[in-house]
Amino acid sequence: VTKLSNKLLLTIEWKNNYLVLIDQTKLPTKLTYVRCRSYKDVADAIRKLVVRGAPAIGVAAAFGLALAAINSKTNNLKIFSKELSNAYATIRSTRPTAVNLQWALDRIMQKIMNLKDIPHIKKVILREALLMAKEDIETNKSMGINGANLFSDGDTIMTHCNAGSLATVAYGTALGVIRAVKESGKKISVIATETRPVMQGSRLTAFELQHENIDVSLIPDTAVGHIMRSGIVKHVIVGADRILSTGHVFNKIGTYQLAVLAKTHNIPFYVVAPASTFDLKNKPKDIVIEERSKDEVIRIGKKIVAPPNIGVINPAFDMTPPKLITKIITEKGIVSPPYTKSIKKIMG
Amino acid sequence: VTKLSNKLLLTIEWKNNYLVLIDQTKLPTKLTYVRCRSYKDVADAIRKLVVRGAPAIGVAAAFGLALAAINSKTNNLKIFSKELSNAYATIRSTRPTAVNLQWALDRIMQKIMNLKDIPHIKKVILREALLMAKEDIETNKSMGINGANLFSDGDTIMTHCNAGSLATVAYGTALGVIRAVKESGKKISVIATETRPVMQGSRLTAFELQHENIDVSLIPDTAVGHIMRSGIVKHVIVGADRILSTGHVFNKIGTYQLAVLAKTHNIPFYVVAPASTFDLKNKPKDIVIEERSKDEVIRIGKKIVAPPNIGVINPAFDMTPPKLITKIITEKGIVSPPYTKSIKKIMG
Repeated sequence: VTKLSNKLLLTIEWKNNYLVLIDQTKLPTKLTYVRCRSYKDVADAIRKLVVRGAPAIGVAAAFGLALAAINSKTNNLKIFSKELSNAYATIRSTRPTAVNLQWALDRIMQKIMNLKDIPHIKKVILREALLMAKEDIETNKSMGINGANLFSDGDTIMTHCNAGSLATVAYGTALGVIRAVKESGKKISVIATETRPVMQGSRLTAFELQHENIDVSLIPDTAVGHIMRSGIVKHVIVGADRILSTGHVFNKIGTYQLAVLAKTHNIPFYVVAPASTFDLKNKPKDIVIEERSKDEVIRIGKKIVAPPNIGVINPAFDMTPPKLITKIITEKGIVSPPYTKSIKKIMG
Repeated sequence: VTKLSNKLLLTIEWKNNYLVLIDQTKLPTKLTYVRCRSYKDVADAIRKLVVRGAPAIGVAAAFGLALAAINSKTNNLKIFSKELSNAYATIRSTRPTAVNLQWALDRIMQKIMNLKDIPHIKKVILREALLMAKEDIETNKSMGINGANLFSDGDTIMTHCNAGSLATVAYGTALGVIRAVKESGKKISVIATETRPVMQGSRLTAFELQHENIDVSLIPDTAVGHIMRSGIVKHVIVGADRILSTGHVFNKIGTYQLAVLAKTHNIPFYVVAPASTFDLKNKPKDIVIEERSKDEVIRIGKKIVAPPNIGVINPAFDMTPPKLITKIITEKGIVSPPYTKSIKKIMG
């Protein structure tokens, strides 16, 4: 049984017949929750970044399918299947880059492929979603244990975006490793980048680490190079939205330049992600990088920070090539270059 | 006589007995002006970033001394000198990193060193400040002409912070070169980085270029590496707050990482600055990098974007080493590596 600290934030929680999500758009000022009573509520929550982070999106999507199934009134299998397919397509279309969304939906669909009895199918879907939520926490704990040995007492670790409790069901991927380092008795400090434009570093990582009394300092994204050169950063650790068989990592915009800067300053650069983040089929050119609304760049709350009719380029993700990545930490172990070989071995 | 486009923003303007500044804290939503009737008003305006940008700060500081002189009621030379020294010290203390502030104040003090007649001293100070404002525009025009040949028709140029009209009296340093490229008949596009935390890219550069119908797209600071790798950026051009005899450039935080990323992607990196930005005395370790309030990172307008009691590291500037700089464009010509030699030659 996975034991969690009392202070740990629970991002996703199933309550009998609805899903409860921390409303991440309201952080850091308010810790509030939203209820999703339908798959459309879930799709909406994913689209609006109420819930975000590749593993969290995956589990939320699974509960979305569960809600579609539970809410169905039909006892005609064809109609039921059609309803599920609609829910699948709606949820699938919310965000293109993270692979866990697809992975979670497919895992559920696989599970019910040959089933004919609607009440039974409903039970199987919900059971699978609940299992995925439970596994997510266990997977994060395993990654934490696997990664913790890479760090030493007194280390300062830089992270980008939020790959924490708030990006998963709980505990986190990159921040899960940071939690595990702390739990192992080592004293560590974290430097969190703001992560413009959505500011997951300021709003989520700073909030989440402070919530658990882990030492954290916030920096503007412009200060990464300057602070790395000062010598205080001993490691960089980030999550991932998709990892290819070649070790190419798709993650939050800004990850690539962090990796370039880490390489320039001889700082090890680690990626932490569960097996569900690996996409062993596609090549770099096949992956769609989501371009988000220019409003994210032009407005912050009600404050207009740029001319409203200015052109904006606002990619949500970027790709970090394997040559910049020191190690990838998974629940199945740690992989090192050459990744084509090591990823195949561990995922095969 | 320097002829300026009707649309060109005039950042600093002397009106008989007071100074008018564009209030840059209100941009991009409102183009408003503030009046400075005393040197304390000027010091305040510099401190609060009503006026910013190394050359603009220099000229504003000169008018600050002029206001201190004009407003003096004494006809005792000792008291008058003491008043001027106080004004000098107050204005000098507003910002530590840009060298132009010191340069401008010292140029005025030098000019009046041996003068004894108070009414005459007042005239000399004002005349010198007006001359500096005029020279600033002419210097920018010269840098524009010197730099324009480095660019080709169709180029996309990335810039950071604001080194434009709004960083000078008018026309600009880095953006002055961009203006000159456009005036030479070449079609160019600009990519402006937001430049967190103060967002001079979003608020000022985007505003200023759009104001003059120069094509500009805004990007988050996190997207620099991703967009450089896409191949669309042909050059990077920035201003400077201080350049040492070795070619070390102090400029807005984020400049250093832009230079590292430009080098990684084989993109030429140019610095544009007048002779008044060169500090031929000091060494890198002597320069104080201004650390600004954590509020700049935590609040945007009234919106709280990070836990209010979080630790913040907020350096306003960084240092770019000469090995990352392709050329430095000045009004006296263009210098190339090795800078110790070329800077000495042109500034000697």
